[in-house]
Amino acid sequence: MDFVDLVRKRYSLRKYSSFPVATPVIEKCLEAARLAPSACNSQPWSFLVAATPEKVKPLAEAAFGGMYSMNAFAAAAPVLVVVLTERSRYSAALGGMFRGVQFSLMDIAIACEHISLQAAELGLGTCMFGWLNEKAVKKELDLPSSTKIDLMLSMGYPEDEEFLPPKKRKSLEDIRRFL
Amino acid sequence: MDFVDLVRKRYSLRKYSSFPVATPVIEKCLEAARLAPSACNSQPWSFLVAATPEKVKPLAEAAFGGMYSMNAFAAAAPVLVVVLTERSRYSAALGGMFRGVQFSLMDIAIACEHISLQAAELGLGTCMFGWLNEKAVKKELDLPSSTKIDLMLSMGYPEDEEFLPPKKRKSLEDIRRFL
Repeated sequence: MDFVDLVRKRYSLRKYSSFPVATPVIEKCLEAARLAPSACNSQPWSFLVAATPEKVKPLAEAAFGGMYSMNAFAAAAPVLVVVLTERSRYSAALGGMFRGVQFSLMDIAIACEHISLQAAELGLGTCMFGWLNEKAVKKELDLPSSTKIDLMLSMGYPEDEEFLPPKKRKSLEDIRRFL
Repeated sequence: MDFVDLVRKRYSLRKYSSFPVATPVIEKCLEAARLAPSACNSQPWSFLVAATPEKVKPLAEAAFGGMYSMNAFAAAAPVLVVVLTERSRYSAALGGMFRGVQFSLMDIAIACEHISLQAAELGLGTCMFGWLNEKAVKKELDLPSSTKIDLMLSMGYPEDEEFLPPKKRKSLEDIRRFL
């Protein structure tokens, strides 16, 4: 598939079929994340994967309860991934601090987008979440309070395989200028 | 091309051929960025494109002089893109502030990775830069001081078309755990 067609095919899936995702399929998506670029090749990510309803449901309840309930639909996804933002290499952390830019946020976002694009190629849908109850997730998973969770991601097959929402985007003229 | 093969093909290109990049090719890469996902569909990006040596050289000198000179190789790239981080939608900005996570950084990183992957598919190489002299770039391009430049990107054909550096990455076992 042409890359731009894959980009067009990816959308934020919110209605999941209950059909489970086979482990090798999940692994293939994580492999695409593993190979992602990062500042100073820091690879500041790790992934905790819930892939059974018994694991997904309490995790989704912790992450998307209360004021975060706009994302509660994720409880119906067969797979839920917690992305841990790990420490960047010293050079990237120092450079980012000097520039006032958290490079690790860029890095994990790119890795997650690799998951989403790989999933789309395999006929799966995903949704990325930045709006989540980090504290409750750490409690649910018994993670140290120093753990940083900036993103989560749901994954599964779409309930409606034909559905493809139109992309609402600014025009190219609005976002680029040749110098 | 399978997505994972495209991911394997993309690397940070530092040795550019002087062969120019045709405008429709640049536009195709920007189109892939335009279609990228973002928090609350904010699309908090715009792209200033230098595509002639007359525009690239002074821009590279501003961005990558002095303590930023590890990226001075970008002066030889036929295309240099300045990514402006625009304001996110109110919901994304507020949510990000509450969470202590700058969603717009994730958004522009994903958009830039779309450029890099689209470029790789077209036989081009790219390199992303977070380490740049933002103040000098703004002065060179006569941009308001409130402008935010978190990323730049070089683009062009590789001097050595056959070269593909091995990817040094942690193993999958090191970065993922099933709950």
